[in-house]
Amino acid sequence: MAASRQLHLGAFMRPTTIHTGAWRYPGAFPDANFNFAHLKRFAQTLEQGCFDAFFMADHLALLNMPMEALKRSHTVTSFDPLTLLPALAAVTERIGLIATASTTFNEPYHVARKFASLDHLSGGRAGWNVVTTSNPDAALNFGLEEHVEHGERYRRGREFFDVVTGLWDSWADDAFLRDQEQGLFFDPDRLHVLDHRGEHFRVRGPLNVARPIQGWPVIVQAGASEAGRQLAAETAEVIFAATPTLADGQRFYRDVKGRLAALGRAPEQLKILPGAFVVVGGTPEEARAKRARLDSLVYYESGIAALSIALGHDASRFDPDGSLPEIPPSNASHSGRERAIALAQREGLTVRQLAQRLGGYAGLAMVGTAASIADQMEEWLLSEACDGFNVMFSHVPGGLDDFVGQVVPELQRRGLFRRAYEGRTLRDHLGLPRPANRFFPD
Amino acid sequence: MAASRQLHLGAFMRPTTIHTGAWRYPGAFPDANFNFAHLKRFAQTLEQGCFDAFFMADHLALLNMPMEALKRSHTVTSFDPLTLLPALAAVTERIGLIATASTTFNEPYHVARKFASLDHLSGGRAGWNVVTTSNPDAALNFGLEEHVEHGERYRRGREFFDVVTGLWDSWADDAFLRDQEQGLFFDPDRLHVLDHRGEHFRVRGPLNVARPIQGWPVIVQAGASEAGRQLAAETAEVIFAATPTLADGQRFYRDVKGRLAALGRAPEQLKILPGAFVVVGGTPEEARAKRARLDSLVYYESGIAALSIALGHDASRFDPDGSLPEIPPSNASHSGRERAIALAQREGLTVRQLAQRLGGYAGLAMVGTAASIADQMEEWLLSEACDGFNVMFSHVPGGLDDFVGQVVPELQRRGLFRRAYEGRTLRDHLGLPRPANRFFPD
Repeated sequence: MAASRQLHLGAFMRPTTIHTGAWRYPGAFPDANFNFAHLKRFAQTLEQGCFDAFFMADHLALLNMPMEALKRSHTVTSFDPLTLLPALAAVTERIGLIATASTTFNEPYHVARKFASLDHLSGGRAGWNVVTTSNPDAALNFGLEEHVEHGERYRRGREFFDVVTGLWDSWADDAFLRDQEQGLFFDPDRLHVLDHRGEHFRVRGPLNVARPIQGWPVIVQAGASEAGRQLAAETAEVIFAATPTLADGQRFYRDVKGRLAALGRAPEQLKILPGAFVVVGGTPEEARAKRARLDSLVYYESGIAALSIALGHDASRFDPDGSLPEIPPSNASHSGRERAIALAQREGLTVRQLAQRLGGYAGLAMVGTAASIADQMEEWLLSEACDGFNVMFSHVPGGLDDFVGQVVPELQRRGLFRRAYEGRTLRDHLGLPRPANRFFPD
Repeated sequence: MAASRQLHLGAFMRPTTIHTGAWRYPGAFPDANFNFAHLKRFAQTLEQGCFDAFFMADHLALLNMPMEALKRSHTVTSFDPLTLLPALAAVTERIGLIATASTTFNEPYHVARKFASLDHLSGGRAGWNVVTTSNPDAALNFGLEEHVEHGERYRRGREFFDVVTGLWDSWADDAFLRDQEQGLFFDPDRLHVLDHRGEHFRVRGPLNVARPIQGWPVIVQAGASEAGRQLAAETAEVIFAATPTLADGQRFYRDVKGRLAALGRAPEQLKILPGAFVVVGGTPEEARAKRARLDSLVYYESGIAALSIALGHDASRFDPDGSLPEIPPSNASHSGRERAIALAQREGLTVRQLAQRLGGYAGLAMVGTAASIADQMEEWLLSEACDGFNVMFSHVPGGLDDFVGQVVPELQRRGLFRRAYEGRTLRDHLGLPRPANRFFPD
């Protein structure tokens, strides 16, 4: 029985898990982010679980953290997403493949061509997570001494998007005749030369790749700032939201969906998928113990640094095994401080446990049995806080296998998630329309 | 029995065949350059034939030819090589994968990262064909009004190469400890920050990908100019040569190999593989008839344009079905004119046939039985005109299947080509050493 609304699930791979202690978890593959055999297995397992997409983050530099912390992080390296995802396309059949690519450190012709190629290679399964790149170290790898300022990054990003989508529309869907008898490979009347001349880019076109199978690969964004939300409302089809509580989720959902009507878009044309870190256990206690174990593997100094930032106060002098002391007022963000204090009280965490929680993963987490995680997901979906989730696994392969093996069947039993793919493209999975060609609307 | 020297064979895919009439040949797949199922089959067939590499050309714009000719050309579009080859890596085990990437229209950090990713994904099978891009239309897709001048392209290309190889050496081969117990993911003492500051590039590094399995992906070049030859002698490990005759091949081979000693390199460290267009028939007559059929499918006006350029004289007024008339002297290259006239006389070609030959493929061609093609290849190899070939197939799948099914076994019988892969990496296949890490020589 299908519920009136169903969840969409992306697997957020950064490149495998986001938790900084995950690679040390018992049974975890410490080289997973660099071992294609493992990554292939993960993608195939996710496809067995009918996930909408394998969603890959990107980094154009080492993460900017102190070396003492960096050397303990498995996220220090990862494959280029647009090199990994074509390989995964060749060993999967249905799952969508979303790659992150920066508009600040790329050329639109390359980005248009690579995503168009991936869409063709994969039979219409590509998605582009459009980011403007906030790591300032990336600029130093691309000839810039200073990071590009936020507003300028967004202006460039918007023009970049226009160029890329314009290039995707270079060819009408029926442009390629391939008439062997007449010797006509394409119809020149069904070819458009973009000839873009804007503030940031001059790109003549046309793209030397046929229009993507999906028209355009699915457009994904994650911006949470005002500029980011507005750009997403104008252009995105999926938003990767970072809403830590149900109330935050509902507010964000209302805000962004509310912007669509004025832009001539229907609410269904933009799916909002918050990130959700999941830890599955046979009992609630087992799940909590798993998470505690995972957090205990976080480098303590990294955790203390994260806690100090949250509190606006140096936490390194606190007794690690004591409870959080009273802290004098500071200029730190009140919400961060209040959340940290409330978290410590609610779960009865020591300073060490709180620090390692913040240094591991501090956003929305679902820790429990398959049934309780399904309850939470159902509540978010039915109370209009989301259209689904970008799931982040506690560790690989165990955490991924647990989710696919236990939570997915529970969601399916409740009619909240598909039991089989109905379509072939990522747009099919997400229920998104195929964009018309702006130059060949017929 | 292995001969004292053996051939190396690359399959040059542009993206499938270079001959402009190939897609119209009876039985040819007209959509081969855009159909992953076909491309996968080709790569797997080439791997069964023990080819050293699948070698993919690249174009950053439509080919710059008149629309009347362009619309008849199957080479108008192709996948981005660095998107296609990872997909082929996932469905093959041994064959090398060489992608063309331009130093004029890319950033070195991206190129270093993508090839390093491909090398890891493929188990050490990546090669980089370093090009400076001669199609002036490409500049218009990357914000430039005018094409970058030849000497400047080469200076930038050389610095680009230094940055990319420096980034590949960011990590010692043993840098990644992945010590789950101690929580140490890498050893910071085995990490080098490049901090390159040159005329064209400032790139801090390090690369956020481990050192490639091959140390560096194999470096391939095709430059034939003086600047191109010298750059190749300094940096290349494979040269894709364009030498139309045995004597040309021998001269080029002597010239380039002769430059190596002064650079401290051994002759074996640079393999010279001329492009060879092959047409296989059961008899010599059948092979010639196949080629004539193929040439007859070339758009006549394209052929006449090519012939006019070769002759330095407008050929469009000639009787297409007559023989080539006497032509008054001109300023055209003597060698091009003489070659065209000699070709027409040697093969008794009409104006139409000559034009279509030049408009199809006019370089080194081996047209005959498996035995006669093997004879030619053996002669080139043993007379030091090459170390092997980049084979260009007449059409796909037929021409490719003919070569793998008939010519490869003949070469194997003569001990001129491997019967099975002995190693796993492209360097293994080519007999090239693994480069030392310049920052961690131990």
